[in-house]
Amino acid sequence: MTEHIVSSFDTDLKEIGRSVVEMGGQAERLVADSVEALVKRDTELAQKVIVLDGPVDLLQREIEEKAVLTIARRQPLASDLREIVAAMRIANDLERIGDLAKNTAKRVLALTGEFHPQKLVRGVEHMSNIVLEQLKVVLDSYASRDDAKALEVWQRDGEVDILYTSLFRELLTYMMEDPRNISLCTHLLFCAKNIERIGDHATNIAETVHYLATGQLLTEERPKQDTSSLTSVAFPA
Amino acid sequence: MTEHIVSSFDTDLKEIGRSVVEMGGQAERLVADSVEALVKRDTELAQKVIVLDGPVDLLQREIEEKAVLTIARRQPLASDLREIVAAMRIANDLERIGDLAKNTAKRVLALTGEFHPQKLVRGVEHMSNIVLEQLKVVLDSYASRDDAKALEVWQRDGEVDILYTSLFRELLTYMMEDPRNISLCTHLLFCAKNIERIGDHATNIAETVHYLATGQLLTEERPKQDTSSLTSVAFPA
Repeated sequence: MTEHIVSSFDTDLKEIGRSVVEMGGQAERLVADSVEALVKRDTELAQKVIVLDGPVDLLQREIEEKAVLTIARRQPLASDLREIVAAMRIANDLERIGDLAKNTAKRVLALTGEFHPQKLVRGVEHMSNIVLEQLKVVLDSYASRDDAKALEVWQRDGEVDILYTSLFRELLTYMMEDPRNISLCTHLLFCAKNIERIGDHATNIAETVHYLATGQLLTEERPKQDTSSLTSVAFPA
Repeated sequence: MTEHIVSSFDTDLKEIGRSVVEMGGQAERLVADSVEALVKRDTELAQKVIVLDGPVDLLQREIEEKAVLTIARRQPLASDLREIVAAMRIANDLERIGDLAKNTAKRVLALTGEFHPQKLVRGVEHMSNIVLEQLKVVLDSYASRDDAKALEVWQRDGEVDILYTSLFRELLTYMMEDPRNISLCTHLLFCAKNIERIGDHATNIAETVHYLATGQLLTEERPKQDTSSLTSVAFPA
């Protein structure tokens, strides 16, 4: 009897874990597609991202519901409880990542027909490649419960922040040089911010995986390097 | 014996609810202070907001922990489960609201010494007054389990989005008119976006209160009016 209970609890746990991994794959796809749509000015792909964010939101609610019912029904022990709480937290981060990708996709639609020098987009593309790599590694670290990998992601968040700050400054400079760049650069600034925040969510997930693997919180202050909100670019004389 | 269990469960529920209300008050304060700091260019107040976001984050984790332990220990019935899930969701939204207020406060620090015409700030202030009112009403609706109030907030989210879209266009125009406005206006755009997103979180909370009061989800599409990510302002000839 006890065995029966334990094994159906295990089934619940595995199902929740599988949903999180599936959701991770979907969120990763949305981020990659949103950036590709931006770089290639592909409005059809952008539309697809906007539509496919819906199923990601739905999956988050399903995971939450399943998690809560599992806790209520199975009264799990501390370590199993951790597993379920981690799934809920990661699903939350993935849902936000989907929203941010959707926002980038919407901006692609706003930019059709706009003056659009490839140079300006390149910085955003470079930054998003790094964030996509971070996201991939952290999702792997969850799937394999690999604390070392998670810590790697956590430590590298600073790089993304540094890139974002320098991109912020660069885009502001382009606006000042040529007012025709203002509308495009403004949207690119928001896209860059979206991507930087996706990086933050990847870092949150890394913290959750660490907590899952070790039962410990990462109490040390996160290596924050984003100073863009503190950035002010003087008007060139 | 059953009575003892029921009453300590009630104590847990009440404690969680009280923490959410307390957290709501703190988040509201952060939003009001961050906007006041922006309008009055008060860097001391901005610093305070940045520091006081920490306790809000902490409270979110405490509510989550307490909620999960209560579910695991008390095996609540469906209606009580709803109460606990609602508390977790609202705490999540409030945590995000605190982060957004903190981001606005950081931008106040970036803008010290900047060319700073009051006219440009006024639109942000107006929008934030409406969002603060939305936040206040929705927190009241949670405290009093008032579905009608919650629905009111939910229906008014469109107003904020319309304001944001028009503010976005206005700030872009100021940048094009005078490049000295670019740095300030860019930060104001992000502040306006922060406030618009705080409005979105207030609407999320309204949906949660509705679910709490009725057991129903608001399935109707939310009245979305923000088209700013679809906005493109032509360079004035």
